[in-house]
Amino acid sequence: MEVGFLGLGIMGNAMATNLLRHGYRVTVWNRTLAKCQELVTLGATVGETPAAVVAKCRYTIAMLSDPAAALSVVFDKDGVLEQIGSGKGYIDMSTVDAATSFKISEAVKQKGGAFVEAPVSGSKKPAEDGQLVILAAGDKTLYDDMVPAFDVLGKKSFFLGEIGNGAKMKLVVNMIMGSMMNSLSEGLSLADKSGLSPQTLLDVLDLGAIANPMFKLKGPAMLQGSYNPAFPLKHQQKDMRLALALGDENAVSMPVSAAANEAFKKARSLGLGDLDFSAVYEVVKGAGGSGQA
Amino acid sequence: MEVGFLGLGIMGNAMATNLLRHGYRVTVWNRTLAKCQELVTLGATVGETPAAVVAKCRYTIAMLSDPAAALSVVFDKDGVLEQIGSGKGYIDMSTVDAATSFKISEAVKQKGGAFVEAPVSGSKKPAEDGQLVILAAGDKTLYDDMVPAFDVLGKKSFFLGEIGNGAKMKLVVNMIMGSMMNSLSEGLSLADKSGLSPQTLLDVLDLGAIANPMFKLKGPAMLQGSYNPAFPLKHQQKDMRLALALGDENAVSMPVSAAANEAFKKARSLGLGDLDFSAVYEVVKGAGGSGQA
Amino acid sequence: MEVGFLGLGIMGNAMATNLLRHGYRVTVWNRTLAKCQELVTLGATVGETPAAVVAKCRYTIAMLSDPAAALSVVFDKDGVLEQIGSGKGYIDMSTVDAATSFKISEAVKQKGGAFVEAPVSGSKKPAEDGQLVILAAGDKTLYDDMVPAFDVLGKKSFFLGEIGNGAKMKLVVNMIMGSMMNSLSEGLSLADKSGLSPQTLLDVLDLGAIANPMFKLKGPAMLQGSYNPAFPLKHQQKDMRLALALGDENAVSMPVSAAANEAFKKARSLGLGDLDFSAVYEVVKGAGGSGQA
Amino acid sequence: MEVGFLGLGIMGNAMATNLLRHGYRVTVWNRTLAKCQELVTLGATVGETPAAVVAKCRYTIAMLSDPAAALSVVFDKDGVLEQIGSGKGYIDMSTVDAATSFKISEAVKQKGGAFVEAPVSGSKKPAEDGQLVILAAGDKTLYDDMVPAFDVLGKKSFFLGEIGNGAKMKLVVNMIMGSMMNSLSEGLSLADKSGLSPQTLLDVLDLGAIANPMFKLKGPAMLQGSYNPAFPLKHQQKDMRLALALGDENAVSMPVSAAANEAFKKARSLGLGDLDFSAVYEVVKGAGGSGQA
Repeated sequence: MEVGFLGLGIMGNAMATNLLRHGYRVTVWNRTLAKCQELVTLGATVGETPAAVVAKCRYTIAMLSDPAAALSVVFDKDGVLEQIGSGKGYIDMSTVDAATSFKISEAVKQKGGAFVEAPVSGSKKPAEDGQLVILAAGDKTLYDDMVPAFDVLGKKSFFLGEIGNGAKMKLVVNMIMGSMMNSLSEGLSLADKSGLSPQTLLDVLDLGAIANPMFKLKGPAMLQGSYNPAFPLKHQQKDMRLALALGDENAVSMPVSAAANEAFKKARSLGLGDLDFSAVYEVVKGAGGSGQA
Repeated sequence: MEVGFLGLGIMGNAMATNLLRHGYRVTVWNRTLAKCQELVTLGATVGETPAAVVAKCRYTIAMLSDPAAALSVVFDKDGVLEQIGSGKGYIDMSTVDAATSFKISEAVKQKGGAFVEAPVSGSKKPAEDGQLVILAAGDKTLYDDMVPAFDVLGKKSFFLGEIGNGAKMKLVVNMIMGSMMNSLSEGLSLADKSGLSPQTLLDVLDLGAIANPMFKLKGPAMLQGSYNPAFPLKHQQKDMRLALALGDENAVSMPVSAAANEAFKKARSLGLGDLDFSAVYEVVKGAGGSGQA
Repeated sequence: MEVGFLGLGIMGNAMATNLLRHGYRVTVWNRTLAKCQELVTLGATVGETPAAVVAKCRYTIAMLSDPAAALSVVFDKDGVLEQIGSGKGYIDMSTVDAATSFKISEAVKQKGGAFVEAPVSGSKKPAEDGQLVILAAGDKTLYDDMVPAFDVLGKKSFFLGEIGNGAKMKLVVNMIMGSMMNSLSEGLSLADKSGLSPQTLLDVLDLGAIANPMFKLKGPAMLQGSYNPAFPLKHQQKDMRLALALGDENAVSMPVSAAANEAFKKARSLGLGDLDFSAVYEVVKGAGGSGQA
Repeated sequence: MEVGFLGLGIMGNAMATNLLRHGYRVTVWNRTLAKCQELVTLGATVGETPAAVVAKCRYTIAMLSDPAAALSVVFDKDGVLEQIGSGKGYIDMSTVDAATSFKISEAVKQKGGAFVEAPVSGSKKPAEDGQLVILAAGDKTLYDDMVPAFDVLGKKSFFLGEIGNGAKMKLVVNMIMGSMMNSLSEGLSLADKSGLSPQTLLDVLDLGAIANPMFKLKGPAMLQGSYNPAFPLKHQQKDMRLALALGDENAVSMPVSAAANEAFKKARSLGLGDLDFSAVYEVVKGAGGSGQA
């Protein structure tokens, strides 16, 4: 099977590599073409422009850094739109907002092409290991065609229906994650102030029914006050805001998430927005004892 | 090693059986003595009264149904206090409040005995499999003596310091669990009202960083509206109330747990107190759409 | 002093009447010109179009029903823009969003005119009695010129600085009002469920430090379940959402308002959005006792 | 009419003075008898002990500083209990918890006497002006007998039913007050961070439907960071905790009050417990901008 691949950042590079290793013929393009060399040694062909890649390949996957890049690759000169058309499919796996995704979808469909949005859950390591979780939506026929490739890239793909549902699903998951991070922070603070060891609490949690990889990974770092940003707090808070707005549209009352969102806002107001989202722990614990917050 | 064992309910029976299977000589007592027969066939000896068991054994473990039973076995006629004394240890593994634990501890120490409280996390199956988590506190020397037995009964034991800390640790864990259950309920409701499949949300969650046994176990049942009480909602709410009270004592502000507590109260007010604590989902989702709450 | 007056709805009619009674020469315009007759009998002159009014008067006040009407009167054919210019002032007292106000402000200023937004707090009765509260912003010189007229129309006017601040001030006031309505609802429910008379609570409140006209007006109606919409709940919830969004922009954490907002959302989800905002009481009390919510 | 009066602190002195001025014959007692002299010059008689006062008077009113004093005057040697009996009434107007009130009530009734609890709302100035609000409960016949005296002492008295209801009513009122103080604090912070003048917000509030004496009195002081304790924050938080506990007993979910309570706890954790309860404003505003909280 032949696929095009646009965008060879950390994620895209790992993903295209996996496709090559599983026997796919891959035509790659990257804004900085030099980045293509590594993949050429693995057997990839280079396309000069996004349009050239789409012209050559029936299916083209994109993995770009942000909505601006995702739009540019489609709408700019020599972009995807110039060659997309009937019988061709475009699959954008970048993480973008629903509005960006709609815009690309409409443009591709107007040209007669098929479109799937397929944001992923997971970062560098899962991308390298082919262990991403793929949240796809849009053209079901194109999705079905892509399942073998998705099976190479991820451990599981979901087809979620209409365009925008991929982004929504990520918001819901991140909202739950944000509330859980607050719950953990409150528990660690309560333990600490009540004469229990927060580290022991982590150990107990890890043996029970609510043990989860996030508590295991973030908990010890939080106790050391180490908030190296895997997922910046300001982005977590933005996702909670958007999830609450989605709830507002649909009249869903979510008091626990709303309380968690206010704690993240407090953290932002304290200048913690660029730290990891687990830094909300500073807001919860900081108020006690030392007279600082 | 020889140990006494008081209380052969579902938990106690499984625990005493494990001790026998690992070569311990066990002298058992139960209020209804007939229940001892099964263990006698496995090699246990029967004591006529708690006092008789303590007289015979250096270490006596108790696993009773509630605080009233825990107090009765110690303070009533023919109770533990009549024979406890210097050189003897009493280990109460029942789930009781801190006040009950303090009362027993003081009485045992006044007689010259050593005392450890050791409530467990885990129910029937982990008890049978020797996979309990043991939250011990009190006399450190006695705890150290008991570690080999705890290793038979559980996958892990913790020594948490002074009497009362076992109960406190359970409260903190249950508080986090209660907030997480609300987070899940809000996420499932948001998914449902936003055109996403709640079942797919569960599938996505189970593949990611916040995957945990509770979501996996309770989630599908919640979607079916099945709330068979493994842990009744009214008990969950009581634990959240007590955890928040512990926070109040120590000036720990916990807005997310407080919001979750109010949702559990709402559930109680709707008559859901005797269902499983996951029935808080009914409060969250119920308000939308159907005109019911 | 001569002023133009655009819009003779319930509010505008009362306001223009007051100006006439205090000796102002007033040129009025209304989309349905017949509505001008009553004011003509009081001494008003009629302008054929908004442009004609502005051509004749140095200062023109508008009081229109919604943002669409406010924009139409300015930008449509024969609108304000055709005659506004250097030396003339336009004062829009309609309740519109900040974006609408900015748009009008920019257009008027580009023509060389001066602009003030001046939304009011208060409805029919205060308008008739000249007891409005006027929240003005924009051109300070024009505001100063208008103070005598504002003194006729209202009991107090405030100059709040830049365009948009009038709308913001209303959001902040309404946010506090929404939280207070929830506080009252919770107090009435607690009284009722605790064996106290909610009516007596209202009586006690009315004699103390937190006595306020809203509790006095709405409280008795709430106890009767009467929610005739003076201010619809869905508009109150919209204002809370916008106030929280304003807080989000400025990193202000507001957990009490957030909790109140979720209660209003719950009310919307129960189909109470078109009732008065005091119907949030149904959400608070409904969950208890009757088995309904 | 003749009444006894026990306790001549700031409140009691003002109240006994009012009774004398309205023609009551009053027999007073105070732990430090010297304090009685001022009232003797106004016509009061002195009783040597609480028992002596009760022996002489059909009705005896008490206004003591705290629960310990209220209990001591009744149960100690030469206390109320020694002379109370059939045909005599005892009215305790001190602010005490429900348990203290029950204890006194039971003891007085067992002796054949009648008892009314009658805590008041209002402090020194209203006491001097006879403008207290009286929250009475207990023996209805005794209450009816006391109405003329209550009319002298207060602007209004309420009969609330069974013993304990006076304390409960105060909790409900204080809970609403605490939520309102948080609402005001959030509004002032939002105004400040959004480019509006907090002082202007206070002015606007004071002209509208939610104007109330507390906002008017506390608002300006809050803007100056002046928190002279009229009602200490730690007591406000205690009352919110007790009100929420009352809600818990009766399954009343109160998410707004719960959020407010957590903010007061945060204030306590920052060492603000001894300041006025309006110091919760520091928690709300503190987190923004300055890097402090």
